[in-house]
Amino acid sequence: MGFVFFVFFYSFASHVITSHKALWVKKGRTLFTMATETLQFVVNRHKVPVTLFILMYIDVLRCQPFTIPFRTPSDCGAEEFFDISSLSCVRCGPNQRRSTTGLSCVCQSGYKTVTTDKASMSCEKCLPNKPGVTKDGFGCIRCPGALSNDGNCQCPPGDVLVERDLNGTLLEEARCETCDEDSPALSVPNRNGDRCERCLAAYVNTSCACKSPNVPGGGLCFPPGIISTNVNPTVTYSQLKFSVQSAWFLENLYSSSSACLGFSNLTACQALGNMCVMNMHSFSSASTDACALFNNIFRFRAALSSTQGISYWRANLPWLYYGDEPGVAIRVLQTDPVPIGFSFRGKNKNTDFRLLAAVYNVRGEFLRWEQVGGQNLQLCPQPKSKRAAAFSFGTAYKESCVLSVAQLFATHPEPLFYDVFLDLGGGENTKLLPLPTLIQNQQYNGRFINQESMNNWYLSRRMFLVDTLSGREKSTSSQPKVIRVASSVKIRFQLVPRTQEGKVFPPLMTVTYTDVLITDLNTQTVATTFAVEYEMDQSEARLKTDIALGVLGGVAVLYSLLKTISWKRRIASSFIDLETMVKFLLFYAGDLANVFFAVTVGTGLYWLIFYKAQQFVSVLLPLPAQEEQFVTYIGCAFALKAVQFLHKLALQVTVDIFLIDWERPRTKTNRSVPVSGESKHDTSPVSIWRTYFVANEWNEIQTIRKISPTFQIMTVLFFLEVLGFSNLALRDPWSNLQRSPEEYTPSYSLTLRYGVAATLWLCIGLLQVIFFTVFYAHFVEDKIRQFVDLCSVSNISVFILSYRCFGYYIHGRSVHGHADTNMEEMNNNLRREAESLCAQRGLLPNTEVQTFQVSLTSRLGMQYKKIQESISRRNQPSRLTDASTLSSLEPHFKAYQAMKHFLGCVIDHAHSDMDYIVKDKLMFESVIGMEFLEPTEKSIFYNDEAHTFSNVLYYGNEATLLIFDTLFFCVVDLGSQSFVLAAVLTYVQQVIFRFLRNSLGRKNLANKTLVDERFLI
Amino acid sequence: MGFVFFVFFYSFASHVITSHKALWVKKGRTLFTMATETLQFVVNRHKVPVTLFILMYIDVLRCQPFTIPFRTPSDCGAEEFFDISSLSCVRCGPNQRRSTTGLSCVCQSGYKTVTTDKASMSCEKCLPNKPGVTKDGFGCIRCPGALSNDGNCQCPPGDVLVERDLNGTLLEEARCETCDEDSPALSVPNRNGDRCERCLAAYVNTSCACKSPNVPGGGLCFPPGIISTNVNPTVTYSQLKFSVQSAWFLENLYSSSSACLGFSNLTACQALGNMCVMNMHSFSSASTDACALFNNIFRFRAALSSTQGISYWRANLPWLYYGDEPGVAIRVLQTDPVPIGFSFRGKNKNTDFRLLAAVYNVRGEFLRWEQVGGQNLQLCPQPKSKRAAAFSFGTAYKESCVLSVAQLFATHPEPLFYDVFLDLGGGENTKLLPLPTLIQNQQYNGRFINQESMNNWYLSRRMFLVDTLSGREKSTSSQPKVIRVASSVKIRFQLVPRTQEGKVFPPLMTVTYTDVLITDLNTQTVATTFAVEYEMDQSEARLKTDIALGVLGGVAVLYSLLKTISWKRRIASSFIDLETMVKFLLFYAGDLANVFFAVTVGTGLYWLIFYKAQQFVSVLLPLPAQEEQFVTYIGCAFALKAVQFLHKLALQVTVDIFLIDWERPRTKTNRSVPVSGESKHDTSPVSIWRTYFVANEWNEIQTIRKISPTFQIMTVLFFLEVLGFSNLALRDPWSNLQRSPEEYTPSYSLTLRYGVAATLWLCIGLLQVIFFTVFYAHFVEDKIRQFVDLCSVSNISVFILSYRCFGYYIHGRSVHGHADTNMEEMNNNLRREAESLCAQRGLLPNTEVQTFQVSLTSRLGMQYKKIQESISRRNQPSRLTDASTLSSLEPHFKAYQAMKHFLGCVIDHAHSDMDYIVKDKLMFESVIGMEFLEPTEKSIFYNDEAHTFSNVLYYGNEATLLIFDTLFFCVVDLGSQSFVLAAVLTYVQQVIFRFLRNSLGRKNLANKTLVDERFLI
Repeated sequence: MGFVFFVFFYSFASHVITSHKALWVKKGRTLFTMATETLQFVVNRHKVPVTLFILMYIDVLRCQPFTIPFRTPSDCGAEEFFDISSLSCVRCGPNQRRSTTGLSCVCQSGYKTVTTDKASMSCEKCLPNKPGVTKDGFGCIRCPGALSNDGNCQCPPGDVLVERDLNGTLLEEARCETCDEDSPALSVPNRNGDRCERCLAAYVNTSCACKSPNVPGGGLCFPPGIISTNVNPTVTYSQLKFSVQSAWFLENLYSSSSACLGFSNLTACQALGNMCVMNMHSFSSASTDACALFNNIFRFRAALSSTQGISYWRANLPWLYYGDEPGVAIRVLQTDPVPIGFSFRGKNKNTDFRLLAAVYNVRGEFLRWEQVGGQNLQLCPQPKSKRAAAFSFGTAYKESCVLSVAQLFATHPEPLFYDVFLDLGGGENTKLLPLPTLIQNQQYNGRFINQESMNNWYLSRRMFLVDTLSGREKSTSSQPKVIRVASSVKIRFQLVPRTQEGKVFPPLMTVTYTDVLITDLNTQTVATTFAVEYEMDQSEARLKTDIALGVLGGVAVLYSLLKTISWKRRIASSFIDLETMVKFLLFYAGDLANVFFAVTVGTGLYWLIFYKAQQFVSVLLPLPAQEEQFVTYIGCAFALKAVQFLHKLALQVTVDIFLIDWERPRTKTNRSVPVSGESKHDTSPVSIWRTYFVANEWNEIQTIRKISPTFQIMTVLFFLEVLGFSNLALRDPWSNLQRSPEEYTPSYSLTLRYGVAATLWLCIGLLQVIFFTVFYAHFVEDKIRQFVDLCSVSNISVFILSYRCFGYYIHGRSVHGHADTNMEEMNNNLRREAESLCAQRGLLPNTEVQTFQVSLTSRLGMQYKKIQESISRRNQPSRLTDASTLSSLEPHFKAYQAMKHFLGCVIDHAHSDMDYIVKDKLMFESVIGMEFLEPTEKSIFYNDEAHTFSNVLYYGNEATLLIFDTLFFCVVDLGSQSFVLAAVLTYVQQVIFRFLRNSLGRKNLANKTLVDERFLI
Repeated sequence: MGFVFFVFFYSFASHVITSHKALWVKKGRTLFTMATETLQFVVNRHKVPVTLFILMYIDVLRCQPFTIPFRTPSDCGAEEFFDISSLSCVRCGPNQRRSTTGLSCVCQSGYKTVTTDKASMSCEKCLPNKPGVTKDGFGCIRCPGALSNDGNCQCPPGDVLVERDLNGTLLEEARCETCDEDSPALSVPNRNGDRCERCLAAYVNTSCACKSPNVPGGGLCFPPGIISTNVNPTVTYSQLKFSVQSAWFLENLYSSSSACLGFSNLTACQALGNMCVMNMHSFSSASTDACALFNNIFRFRAALSSTQGISYWRANLPWLYYGDEPGVAIRVLQTDPVPIGFSFRGKNKNTDFRLLAAVYNVRGEFLRWEQVGGQNLQLCPQPKSKRAAAFSFGTAYKESCVLSVAQLFATHPEPLFYDVFLDLGGGENTKLLPLPTLIQNQQYNGRFINQESMNNWYLSRRMFLVDTLSGREKSTSSQPKVIRVASSVKIRFQLVPRTQEGKVFPPLMTVTYTDVLITDLNTQTVATTFAVEYEMDQSEARLKTDIALGVLGGVAVLYSLLKTISWKRRIASSFIDLETMVKFLLFYAGDLANVFFAVTVGTGLYWLIFYKAQQFVSVLLPLPAQEEQFVTYIGCAFALKAVQFLHKLALQVTVDIFLIDWERPRTKTNRSVPVSGESKHDTSPVSIWRTYFVANEWNEIQTIRKISPTFQIMTVLFFLEVLGFSNLALRDPWSNLQRSPEEYTPSYSLTLRYGVAATLWLCIGLLQVIFFTVFYAHFVEDKIRQFVDLCSVSNISVFILSYRCFGYYIHGRSVHGHADTNMEEMNNNLRREAESLCAQRGLLPNTEVQTFQVSLTSRLGMQYKKIQESISRRNQPSRLTDASTLSSLEPHFKAYQAMKHFLGCVIDHAHSDMDYIVKDKLMFESVIGMEFLEPTEKSIFYNDEAHTFSNVLYYGNEATLLIFDTLFFCVVDLGSQSFVLAAVLTYVQQVIFRFLRNSLGRKNLANKTLVDERFLI
């Protein structure tokens, strides 16, 4: 480590020192190089004029970076113009001033323009007899009246100024002419005011002037009595709680309604409709605002036939509303499927849908058909490849961004209106399906009906994105007080229930507008969202889940009852007391956890397979809001599993265990019956080291498992994060593992995430279990088998009681009589056994079975417990050299010897009243984990070649541990959406519980076998 | 697991079954609901007329989704118009035809328009005496000549048609008038052809017609002799290897050059410059293409003063080129710093820079000043928040995307030209610094000089993004044959060396154009890139690194020599042979690895701290291309470290070890001198089980470490991926750990990635070492100390020889004489020791020191080796019940007893010619790892309370292991850019090496101590 810091400080120091050196060395070198280069340059390129060379050399010597001052055309003075080549302000010539653009000069008022031969412009004062400058600026003319400020001739208002005759010759004196307004001439001055033109179509055709009783409006002239002139031009901003007398409405509302109602003018009707849309479709029947006027005309047209066979769409009118009777929304949205089917793969693959919009401008003119998705509905700037994902069926799409108001102003000077249709395809005879729109802000007689239940919804059509026009108060070119933005546009597809052909109901477009009060244009921002969602009715799936839960929960109750009965028998008790109830609940917790786990994993896998692998669309993922119940189930599974796990842990660290040493002291009278436990000092004592060895090994196999938990975590992480299995959990129908960063990445589905993670965890766990129990145990090492072998070699039996009358017995009596011997004899013994020269290891003669489940009579159980209680003790020293009151251990050792003697007698059939028989367990007994025979007279030793004594270790509870780990991993991931964090926390959890299990287990072992904890290392 | 599949199949089955059920139940319910709702609706809302209700009810009964056929205005027939309210085609009235837009009807040719009272239009045939329709369509008129196809009057070309008199009254007969082209009238027909106007400025002012010898060009008229009319209007596409006679050049090249040279017309000069830019600034002196013409004019203007004091910028001309003499680029780019300083934090924080561009259109008109970064240089669509990151100093920015050619056509109908400047700030007196531009495609007399060395670069100015104009061949409105796109725009900042104030040289903009041959407009795409890079001269940093490497490498040689000498002494050899050389190289590999590691970590940390924490910018990260050397160093470090690690591993698994059992058989004559190793069967043999226990424990501590390797990996992963430390390695100056997904994410810097990962790994490792050696060893357990204690309690000493004459000795003779006793006595012994009632454990009387380094005389070493060789054996059985030829082991046991006896004698000073002394080791000896005293007469036992015997275990080599793991992690990460993968592979690596070390170590232990491998579990 020292190295690192050395280098670091070296670098630091030299960095600081060198940076303050003078730079003269470099400067000098540069000048020299330059001189050389200049010489070369003179020699090589002769064409460059010498002047240029000198200029450049001077420039080189000056040696300053080029900078120029920043000037814009508006920075230049009144007599300067902006020189576009030098980007600076340059003085105009004499008698000139700057033009309106500021990029050139024009002659001052009263001067005419003269072009000279060299195209440089000069100005010449007009003579007093012809004081006026012509409008083109090139000539002088006599005026019939006064001069304007610009120096041109001025005519009375309404007159036109004529300066040239018909073949272009300039007149000596300009003339003012009055246009004839009346029929048949019907002429008015044109825009420039220099000639008379026919006036445009008005609705009165006798004169261009709109004389009473005709009513002028919006630049047109209406005959009286079409509609009342008392219209309401206010726009109400209910979010901001004020209204604005909109200049646009003031100008156009009356004229549009009149022209629409009176003359069925198409654009006028559209313009009226647009005003209603700008009011967010809101109206009350008492008002005369845009929507009320529209609805009046709509009702008035009821007698006329409807357009395109749709009763909500009247001739000449835009289609703004669906009907307002209750339930129309449900009928429109959930009755008839769209006549196309979506399919994710196969030769009929059909995932891309196309939305078309008829675009109108605010004046009601039809502009074009436009495909939705480019610059129109998706306001947020996104690369095209990402944006296209919005129109790929099944991909949950959402884009959000914050736009600056100034930018919206620039890009949306006036609102555009969109009638959105779904393209149903069909080549030549392409059909379009109008998309019903739900305006969240729409008010109906003051109620926000679209925020109520679906039954009350009032669907509509036509929308806009940004309206900077209706909020202008004084004039239509003033700055608006408020702008209105479609801050959320959401298209929702709903799948037809039980469809097998990917049918959907007509998609619903939900629009929410936001009113932005303009305070500071340049800093204000507004957030917008565009989303496409896919939904299906989840009630059926939920019902199925609940049925599965109910059925399996019932089975779990039965199974837990069975377990409780088995437990009651194993503790030889028959009362139903509080403890029994608690025990039942604990068993039930475990079984119910399995049920929840099975159902949730099944559900996750179901969605994963059916959603990702379907050809024709028949299922869609649950929306985040629909996933709550699922997450609750996972939470239940985890909590219950944790209870079960802790229960098992508690049982394991309190198990009764005793090591029976069969070794007899080496005296001449070897085979005598053992005398009382007191060993005699005059014969060599039996060495305790074999017991230590066995206890030590037992301690070491406490937390080995059938899998490597860390490898498990690492592999799962590898699959999820490196191989990209996590991409399977994205809300889109694709199942490829690698996604390019250019593609759109949808959000994750919790259901799929759980499905992928849990499945992966279980599969890898299963593979590991198979590997470790089949391959590794046979070809490398099997710790459990090794322990049993060790017992046999060391002449020590292990007696384990997990319940008062039930437990396990590992028979370890050495076939050689003595194990406490030197290395040579040990090796001889092993060799003899290998060559089958001695008896077999089993408890019964000529058998090999060493491991048993034991079902004790309650009498034997009581006797064992009595002795065990006097062995157990408290307070243990912690270091080998530590001092503690060992003298008080004397009675423990007595009890220890008594236990050894007692169990030895029992195994040797020496206690006739506590005898036992050995038998095989029935298959069914093993499966349900309960013994049918009750050991009343004799205890029963069941042969157990499967080493089920590992049930008191981690090893025998792999399923519980694996499921607990899986749930822990998934719960952390669902909470944090991070597989890495889940992996880290799962590791920490495993370490903590392993540490707890090890230390408590060691304490228990020391307690029960009297082996000093210091030997359990 | 069964549960899962059950649920899964249940769901699957019910899914399939229910989907085929008939839907009649639902249909029936719907109709009933509808009837009810309709009733409610009639009661509630009386206002709706009954007709409407009936219509709606019919619609409801029809029950089909609304669809309409898709029609566009162009779909409608010649006598139909597109009804914008119903979006369908509707027939026009009688005598009408569709208008040009298709949205309304107009009268057929020969019919005049008549508006009726209801504003519905009708058409009336003009009478034969007035057969012509007026241009406004509302009247009929007599014509002086023929009728046009539209039914209007037609005049001869060049004449204007007059239909109304000056006050708007329609004439009886229209008149054709000829405009007077000559001075002073100078009039021509206007665009509509209905009146005479003054003609626009031409460079001849006698007539509007351009009569010979004047030359017409680009709509203007030039006097003869300004330039030769023989200009070359081709645009060469060297990538595609062909040229195009560009319509735009053909039209404008001559006129622009003439107007520029002859009349100093500003826009003409700009237009000429733009044509040169469209040619990618390429020219050869022999041609008369745009750039050659520009250069001619440039040279012609040499006498005039330059603009803004910049000699490359002539008055009235755009600035296109820097000088073409060699070395100009170096002078411009690396001589004078920009007069502003960048600073990352503090009150002078200045990171955002602003680029301004003067924008010109292709006709040479100045449009505006524009800030670079919006829609101009960054062609890729990006959210604004991401795009802004390009102009934050120090953030390496790159955006790439593929644009469709059709989209480019729509957005760039004609090219815009940008003169880019860096805004130097300064409020009112804002200064601008012109950005030198390097056009990669620029040719100079046929050479791509800008792809050569910097000395030859020919810098320029002005660029365009998309040019769809110059490739049009026939006319300027035809479809282009080729378009040219700036496919790569890169801005590169270079830091002034040794700056402390964040000074940079003028940034260089590098532009690469791509020519796209248009074949299919709609499917073709083009890839574009916009990047901002920051660079500093790395030669100094590289020099420092090399110096550090050199110095430290030299030290490493010395240190390795010392190690080799020490090794020679420890194997009691003094020849320098091949083995010595190899050994030296192995030692040197380890030391050199440390040097490389220290230097690279130091460098990484240096960049991390200095780059991320600097206030004024003084260092910039090395570019990816500059990191190669650094990566090589890391590779060297890893490879060398791997060699060292494998070497250590090999040494550890071949170490000599022997367990000396001090226990004597329990006979009455207890304290007699031991007889020869043969044990007698009539006395009880000494139990081998203590030896087994000690050997088993020794086997278990082989691979324990001072850290938990898995916890290490998990913690590092947690910091990097969950807490977001990996974000420190991004190429930007910010040091916040959490980045929002809306922000721009730059690429990773390998240097920083290595710096972060290695530092984090070392820090966490160090913390763990401190925790485990200080806290855990004292308060929980210390495996090494436990082993020493165990030796003492079990009456067994351990003798380890790592080299022939050097090793370790753990003195384990029990202070109680016997350890082979029962539990009660063991406990008594321990209690007595705890109460200090017996002797101390040390080798020397009254000492506590149990562990020693031993330096043997070569005689003792030889003797040991001799016996050891007869112990060692091959071929071991693998299961306790396995059969093998144990009889052949007899000689091994003899040797074993001999060794036991021999070592026992030596320790007991019973061999007078192989005696030893015990002494303390000097501090300096410990530090350099070498003994000064050579054991010639007597062996030397050095007190060693630090348990250095762990050097033959993983435990004593933590530094090597930690550095190896660090390097492994970093190398994998540098290769894959994935910390998760690195973590997984590091874990796998650790597992593999641990497994190897364990199995080889176990084999060695069994081999050397004769303890059967089956007891080492």
